[in-house]
Amino acid sequence: MGPPRAGRSSPGGRGRKAARVRVGRLRGGRFSTRGDSVAVEEPMEVRLEVPGDEGVREHPISVTMRTPGEDFELAAGFLFTEGVVIDPAAVADVRYCRNVDPQEYNVVTASVRDPAAFDATSLTRNFYVTSSCGVCGKASLEAVEVMGCQPVADGTFAVAEGDIRALPDRLRSLQRTFERTGGLHAAGLFDGDGRITLAREDVGRHNAVDKVIGALLLSRSLPGSELGVIVSGRSSFEILQKAAMAGFPMVVAVGAPSSLAVAFARRFNLTLVGFANRDGYNVYSGGDRIVRGNGAGE
Amino acid sequence: MGPPRAGRSSPGGRGRKAARVRVGRLRGGRFSTRGDSVAVEEPMEVRLEVPGDEGVREHPISVTMRTPGEDFELAAGFLFTEGVVIDPAAVADVRYCRNVDPQEYNVVTASVRDPAAFDATSLTRNFYVTSSCGVCGKASLEAVEVMGCQPVADGTFAVAEGDIRALPDRLRSLQRTFERTGGLHAAGLFDGDGRITLAREDVGRHNAVDKVIGALLLSRSLPGSELGVIVSGRSSFEILQKAAMAGFPMVVAVGAPSSLAVAFARRFNLTLVGFANRDGYNVYSGGDRIVRGNGAGE
Repeated sequence: MGPPRAGRSSPGGRGRKAARVRVGRLRGGRFSTRGDSVAVEEPMEVRLEVPGDEGVREHPISVTMRTPGEDFELAAGFLFTEGVVIDPAAVADVRYCRNVDPQEYNVVTASVRDPAAFDATSLTRNFYVTSSCGVCGKASLEAVEVMGCQPVADGTFAVAEGDIRALPDRLRSLQRTFERTGGLHAAGLFDGDGRITLAREDVGRHNAVDKVIGALLLSRSLPGSELGVIVSGRSSFEILQKAAMAGFPMVVAVGAPSSLAVAFARRFNLTLVGFANRDGYNVYSGGDRIVRGNGAGE
Repeated sequence: MGPPRAGRSSPGGRGRKAARVRVGRLRGGRFSTRGDSVAVEEPMEVRLEVPGDEGVREHPISVTMRTPGEDFELAAGFLFTEGVVIDPAAVADVRYCRNVDPQEYNVVTASVRDPAAFDATSLTRNFYVTSSCGVCGKASLEAVEVMGCQPVADGTFAVAEGDIRALPDRLRSLQRTFERTGGLHAAGLFDGDGRITLAREDVGRHNAVDKVIGALLLSRSLPGSELGVIVSGRSSFEILQKAAMAGFPMVVAVGAPSSLAVAFARRFNLTLVGFANRDGYNVYSGGDRIVRGNGAGE
């Protein structure tokens, strides 16, 4: 089975990522008016076509604010990491919707070959999980297991200490739209040598992670058991959930983790690093995947 | 009509905002293991009781990851800014759910006096708005008008340039949990003298804004036409939507705005400031509410 068909247009880079606006600027006591770039935020609707006894049915899934470009990756990543499509290999194709103005490129329809790959309960799962017993962090962790997410195997993936420290600068050098707008989150995939193999930007931090995971899905490269993911911001439950769904053994964040991100990483055997920078980092879980030394990538 | 009844416990400060975890720490080539504080992230479910011909019915509304504390403010603010409760005066009370372990404090039930104050379509509105015509930024702005949000009146609210520049430091001095964890967003209300009258923190940036708006709702102080809101991060469509629902004429962000935040501010006549710091700021909309000079608050 080959990779999913891409629809009428290439999935990457099509949308405008930055827009020009007039802005009044005060600096050092001087006021001026000039043009400036801001990160583009536009809604995108995701739909899913599922074959059935009575023909193909289209389900509305979500509307997300995102930065245009890599829309197919975002849709594919979101559908998988949120447990809507439980088998990444079942994604048949991803395309812009036929029935709306193609100029807008804001409705993306994915399809699955097999109805068993679609978990309809995912759309309302929060309530099923919580209505009987109240909600708590422990229940949230268990809900992720219900989605089919397993603890990461110990495996062979490891990264040198020096490479961990170098990752934030390496990611930053790839954040092209951030440089212009100051307004985008980023996520990057890295290998055991600390090389960033793919980076994506978005106004939404979860979207940036979904895009890198969606790129793996569309190239049939999941699970990512020999990859880590680095995020430009903080790490939360949801970032860890997405990483675990993709099979990544390591999450590195430039910012702080939440309590539930730490609990998630420990339960699912992920390495979780926070406050990473040139000088050091904190490791909250799975420190055995970090090797002393400067690493090959530096 | 008095303010809503608070349920069995006080709405603020009850939950734990920071948790201790063991962390491995690398700095300047030295590795050590120690205890450290992380921001608490826990799910909270919001339910809404609505009176009807066949008695009171409880609707599940949402499950949100949040930092505990000010849970009633968060619930009230969310219900109003998302258009679920269209009349803030109709909120009768907010309490922790009776049927679950009160130790957990993670299910909050609000009730409205009048069924007309509950907009059931809000729960699925995204799809109603988009399914006929595709989605785009313009449609998103129009959807906010459908929710009953009007452009802010010109009014008398104005803030001195020097006070705008001072706001980020004033907010930071109130971010008590951030100082310990590095992991929380903050939102603050400020008056025309640049004084911060209320500040709230949360792992979710939208939650921090909902908390300050919910505090106004619970004290019957909406709309906030003589207040602005400052956020510690970036400004997006959703932050602007919440501010406009609350009637704030001004949004100040420490970070960058998105394209749709700028478009929103211009359409709804809000002042939008970004990249605010001691030395200056950018103003994207409504610059006439900023007065040259150092201001009274400095």
